[in-house]
Amino acid sequence: MRGAVIHAPGDVRFETLDDPMILKPTDAIIRTAVTCVCGSDLWPWRGQDAIDGAHPMGHEYVGFVEEVGSEVTAVRPGQFVVGSFATSDNTCANCRNGWQSNCLNREFMSTCQAEYVRIPNAQGTLVATDGVPGEEFRPGLLAVSDVMGTGWYAADAAEVRPGSTAVVVGDGAVGLCAVIAAKEMGAERIIAMSRHASRQDLAREFGATDIVTERGDEGVARIKDLTDGIGADSVLECVGTAEAMRQAVHSARPGGNVGFVGVPHEVAVDGQELFFSHVGLRGGPAPVRRYLPDLIERVLSGRIDPGKVFDLTLPLEQVAEGYKAMDERRAIKALLKP
Amino acid sequence: MRGAVIHAPGDVRFETLDDPMILKPTDAIIRTAVTCVCGSDLWPWRGQDAIDGAHPMGHEYVGFVEEVGSEVTAVRPGQFVVGSFATSDNTCANCRNGWQSNCLNREFMSTCQAEYVRIPNAQGTLVATDGVPGEEFRPGLLAVSDVMGTGWYAADAAEVRPGSTAVVVGDGAVGLCAVIAAKEMGAERIIAMSRHASRQDLAREFGATDIVTERGDEGVARIKDLTDGIGADSVLECVGTAEAMRQAVHSARPGGNVGFVGVPHEVAVDGQELFFSHVGLRGGPAPVRRYLPDLIERVLSGRIDPGKVFDLTLPLEQVAEGYKAMDERRAIKALLKP
Repeated sequence: MRGAVIHAPGDVRFETLDDPMILKPTDAIIRTAVTCVCGSDLWPWRGQDAIDGAHPMGHEYVGFVEEVGSEVTAVRPGQFVVGSFATSDNTCANCRNGWQSNCLNREFMSTCQAEYVRIPNAQGTLVATDGVPGEEFRPGLLAVSDVMGTGWYAADAAEVRPGSTAVVVGDGAVGLCAVIAAKEMGAERIIAMSRHASRQDLAREFGATDIVTERGDEGVARIKDLTDGIGADSVLECVGTAEAMRQAVHSARPGGNVGFVGVPHEVAVDGQELFFSHVGLRGGPAPVRRYLPDLIERVLSGRIDPGKVFDLTLPLEQVAEGYKAMDERRAIKALLKP
Repeated sequence: MRGAVIHAPGDVRFETLDDPMILKPTDAIIRTAVTCVCGSDLWPWRGQDAIDGAHPMGHEYVGFVEEVGSEVTAVRPGQFVVGSFATSDNTCANCRNGWQSNCLNREFMSTCQAEYVRIPNAQGTLVATDGVPGEEFRPGLLAVSDVMGTGWYAADAAEVRPGSTAVVVGDGAVGLCAVIAAKEMGAERIIAMSRHASRQDLAREFGATDIVTERGDEGVARIKDLTDGIGADSVLECVGTAEAMRQAVHSARPGGNVGFVGVPHEVAVDGQELFFSHVGLRGGPAPVRRYLPDLIERVLSGRIDPGKVFDLTLPLEQVAEGYKAMDERRAIKALLKP
């Protein structure tokens, strides 16, 4: 089969690779229906994360089950399945507590920009749809496996409630999906921080009621202006930089909540500042598996369409162009079709 | 009147001071029934917080209303009242959200180790008891005004739930009151981290089911041993040092919660570590006013007796001995009687 391999910053190649095989009785092999490039894939592409030898890329996938290990009974060959970037047995103590992305047997996916993918912990990770969804739903279901699940977690961790005010920091695919989540959870006012016209438009389409283009202290001041000087009930931090985290904590009202889902890069939170803010903070890799049945239903019923974050579609063999387009911000997110 | 004044580290004097007066129509003057020394008073006493000129001390009080300003109608002279170390108008947006310790008109109390005290924001701060409580209840009500209210907030912020496991870091008066709070909120297992026999005894009396004497990584390992390797649902951090915060975050299970109420001194939380832990974090000065009616009722009904944290009673004029005894850990907390 063929798939994407990163060799060095800026150097992703589409190569012939060994077909994946069942290695453990808990594995499944899927044939990729659609996959994509993630904002976090750009960290190594840009040389901001070290690349320790050439390795496959990609952690987002939906597809058809090809083969299952002897212990996998929840899904069967031919079914269309949605998973998560973090696999989980869905039976350990952490999974039972709803933190499947902290499963004691967790394995992070990393080989999904390929024609076939081995899924560890398949029994607890994969959810089959009722029948095979039409092509029009597949981008949305693919989004659910990562960016939509992550945006949902940001809103959940930030405790978005009906009638509340939510701020979304970051206008990447996760931030845009976080707008969808805040809207679904009933936020009355959703302030998207974005300075890119096309992203602002999509944020509005997804439910944003206000757009703030300022950043840093100016951005915080603008949020305060919009919230009677107090700050927002919930802030959804979808970037991962120190500036974005600072902006998020400062934009929340006393006693408000920040959900942070951008993988922190050199972020330290000052204890005394957090203390006197009374702001609650929770982050992490989203426990997508917890949300899967609900989010799949929302997509298949047409209630939400997070697939709109894909504004570029490429054949899988042009995966490198997907990285480039996202790096240069020509695309929000690139969909790849095998 | 007479009251305590700190002049330098280790130098607290009982001096004649001007009688407090109504300065604003929202003030009240109370005659102190009992007051006390707080663990946080020891920061300047030990020279760990700078002392910018001689100034009065103390922020815990219960007493009798002597006089009220023209805008104070909620309490009247002669009533016995309980307040909080942070005053609040109880009408601003933050107060309405339940964060009275972040009131837009907040003033922190700082003159309470004295015979008479001026209470700003009296209307929103003071709660009168039904009749004058007997002497036996006054230490408990005094605790409610600060350490019990703070322990309660630690448990609230750490989201202690019925049947859960809670760890309390710190065996000072706040930590011991946090044990009471965890018990009242229904924690099934309460692990107190303490290495002092008398405090361990009181923790057990208050509801602790386990005592852990180890600290740092060893303490964390011991907590993991006691919680099936996962960690605790809730951790109540009642110290404020970097080591205590680290111990707290590491002792919580994935997706668990840390409530931190020790004023952080040189604490920075690593963003990436917090991210991958999935632990929720909330701290701050306790919104005692939110809890006052409930906690007063629990004390007066005899359901809880946080007054037991006072293991030394002194005449107010011996206030300096109270500081010494607490600094040398001869006393958990010193009650002062005018």
